[in-house]
Amino acid sequence: MALIVQKYGGSSVADAESIKRVAKRIVDTRRAGHDVVVAVSAMGDTTDELLDLANEVAPIPAPRELDMLLSSGERISMALLAMAIHSMGFEARSFTGSQAGMITDAKHGAARIVDVTPVRLREALDEGAIVIVAGFQGFNRDTRDITTLGRGGSDTTAVALAAALNADVCEIYSDVDGIYTADPRVIPRARKLDSITSEEMLELAANGAKVLYIRAVEYARRHGVLIHARSTFSSVEGTYVLGEGQRSPRETEGAVMEEPIVAGVATDLTQAKITVSGVPDVPGKAAEIFTVVAKSGANVDMIVQNVSAASTGRTDISFTLPKADAATALKALAGEKARIGFENLLHDDQIGKLSVVGAGMRTHSGVSATLFEALSEGGINIEMISTSEIRISVVLRGDDLAEAARAVHAAYGLDSEIEAIVHAGTGR
Amino acid sequence: MALIVQKYGGSSVADAESIKRVAKRIVDTRRAGHDVVVAVSAMGDTTDELLDLANEVAPIPAPRELDMLLSSGERISMALLAMAIHSMGFEARSFTGSQAGMITDAKHGAARIVDVTPVRLREALDEGAIVIVAGFQGFNRDTRDITTLGRGGSDTTAVALAAALNADVCEIYSDVDGIYTADPRVIPRARKLDSITSEEMLELAANGAKVLYIRAVEYARRHGVLIHARSTFSSVEGTYVLGEGQRSPRETEGAVMEEPIVAGVATDLTQAKITVSGVPDVPGKAAEIFTVVAKSGANVDMIVQNVSAASTGRTDISFTLPKADAATALKALAGEKARIGFENLLHDDQIGKLSVVGAGMRTHSGVSATLFEALSEGGINIEMISTSEIRISVVLRGDDLAEAARAVHAAYGLDSEIEAIVHAGTGR
Repeated sequence: MALIVQKYGGSSVADAESIKRVAKRIVDTRRAGHDVVVAVSAMGDTTDELLDLANEVAPIPAPRELDMLLSSGERISMALLAMAIHSMGFEARSFTGSQAGMITDAKHGAARIVDVTPVRLREALDEGAIVIVAGFQGFNRDTRDITTLGRGGSDTTAVALAAALNADVCEIYSDVDGIYTADPRVIPRARKLDSITSEEMLELAANGAKVLYIRAVEYARRHGVLIHARSTFSSVEGTYVLGEGQRSPRETEGAVMEEPIVAGVATDLTQAKITVSGVPDVPGKAAEIFTVVAKSGANVDMIVQNVSAASTGRTDISFTLPKADAATALKALAGEKARIGFENLLHDDQIGKLSVVGAGMRTHSGVSATLFEALSEGGINIEMISTSEIRISVVLRGDDLAEAARAVHAAYGLDSEIEAIVHAGTGR
Repeated sequence: MALIVQKYGGSSVADAESIKRVAKRIVDTRRAGHDVVVAVSAMGDTTDELLDLANEVAPIPAPRELDMLLSSGERISMALLAMAIHSMGFEARSFTGSQAGMITDAKHGAARIVDVTPVRLREALDEGAIVIVAGFQGFNRDTRDITTLGRGGSDTTAVALAAALNADVCEIYSDVDGIYTADPRVIPRARKLDSITSEEMLELAANGAKVLYIRAVEYARRHGVLIHARSTFSSVEGTYVLGEGQRSPRETEGAVMEEPIVAGVATDLTQAKITVSGVPDVPGKAAEIFTVVAKSGANVDMIVQNVSAASTGRTDISFTLPKADAATALKALAGEKARIGFENLLHDDQIGKLSVVGAGMRTHSGVSATLFEALSEGGINIEMISTSEIRISVVLRGDDLAEAARAVHAAYGLDSEIEAIVHAGTGR
């Protein structure tokens, strides 16, 4: 008998029918002899609807009250889910974040978990009940106020519960059936991975893959939680996300499969590029530029500085950032043009980013050569390059991104023989 | 500076606009220099929508989970209300039933308040904040579970808070501007009362008047809370409900106005009449009949037994009960026909009940004579009569009820010179 934590996102519990389907799934797990703890998000668009209401009554809603408001969403879904399970003849009890012992700091809207004390959950499990916990929400001990965890909060709730209860596995259910070598909507021949290391998963997620939230994967890695990403709509196994020393439950004892060199290809069309040209090539200019950008609130991703032309003593610095942040960053930089002493600002929101991620890059050479070759053969121009220990990213024209990704995916031998079935949407 | 508790029902906070209007009203009270504690119901039809969802996922929802579900409704309205006040520049904090110290027994769906420990509310008031509390909900100390108070719960929350905080007045806001001498939809010349005694209010509420819930009025009477029933949509004073020894704040010191003999006329079309005819006139038969009826779950109101005809040794017993309970009660009685030994069961759901209520009946004679005279002059037939210390009720044909009420209202001199303005709907 194992202790299994399951997380269901908003699209998995969008209406009464979906809730009953999820309830049946939970009951099946219980019938198989396991203890089950479930973290659940708010139904479908509930959170957005509540946010709309908040904005209607207050231009800038008070953060404490916004958390009180939003946390009602999971109360609804968890109570309905517990009822549905109950009516199938199984004991189920729902708990709010505070009842579940999800202790956070007091930062409303983006609270961090500081402790998990699942006393009531253990009691309920000992009494044979299925435990349903509100995702996304916590409780601050000092203020005694309700908090919410921000984006990806329910995934983090599930992983934190799995860590605190020492669960055997944390199953994250969504409308995709695992982690793919690429986004199947971009590359129909993307292949589902049996497993992926958590560091690869983090790089993929940071570069455009949307199945799991970085924060939850980080938490899992730090606390040794085994994540199993799988689909609400099918019973096939999904993808295991393995921390250090963890092994996929599917591997037969002793038979260590060879690690693939490249785990996947991520694509990202959400970024823009800003080029600051004619920057005096003297120490401290990059620091000046990125201090201004950081103060504007923008989240810079890739940075590339070209070698300066000896004749001018000036250089160009390019960086990428979320499209939504570009206008503010440009305005901030323009205001400091005289002080920094650059010549021009260029803005380009038609870029695409392609990243190849694989832990095998550490021990294999020639990985980047394959990438550049594939792009070159496709006649695709590379505008920026950036690398980490296990990732190579290139910036291309946005229009070229899908074609480039297909070429690269094939070049690394990742293509499957069949095309993937694609569902749309993600939970919170 | 006074401490004022205000209660707003669901129709007063049905949408963003209404919430802003209520927020402004609360802020005005604060601006006038008062401390304000607000109990608020769920928005508009939220509770019914949540109930519908519950019934979709489970035929008989688990009571603990149903309370968890329903209690989310007030979380939404109270957080929105606090935000709206906040954005008007005033500090406001919302509290759930459990945070507000509303301690109840563990009877889910119909919990009784056993203690109120408003420690956090006092702290917030001391810090100058406006306090918003979720109506309708509480918390059981033993199970540590969330409970709901059942029908009229938010009114009861408000009165219980007023009692625990020793508030100067508990203002119950709704879409009617006070207590009337009759339902203005039935009698357009009904007059708003400046004040009414709590015992009169209880009799009126028990006999069809819908402005205040019996339970809240009882709680107020027991704990000496002064209730002020008034309208969300106007600033005119409403009606004070006075407990023993309490006096309306509108009365000038020393000038005790003469108590009116009759406070009001209540009408009720929700009851049915069952007549058990040919009952053997021997001791114990009434007990047998009403034990059977009680076991069926029906709530019997009036009971009348006619004098038995000496020739037959049999008598007829008639009683009224809510129309919804009639079928079950009839079935239960029919099943015991042989044992009880009655001859026939008659069912009549076309009746109406008219009640005249007034504390002055204790000291004035001739009150019932006025009633019977008025009905007789109108050619209206009386089918049953029942009286209490301060009330006379008669059962008539339902079709005659409105005309009868108008005649009786006029006969007691209650008619106002102008017609009342009528709004529709009630809160929870």
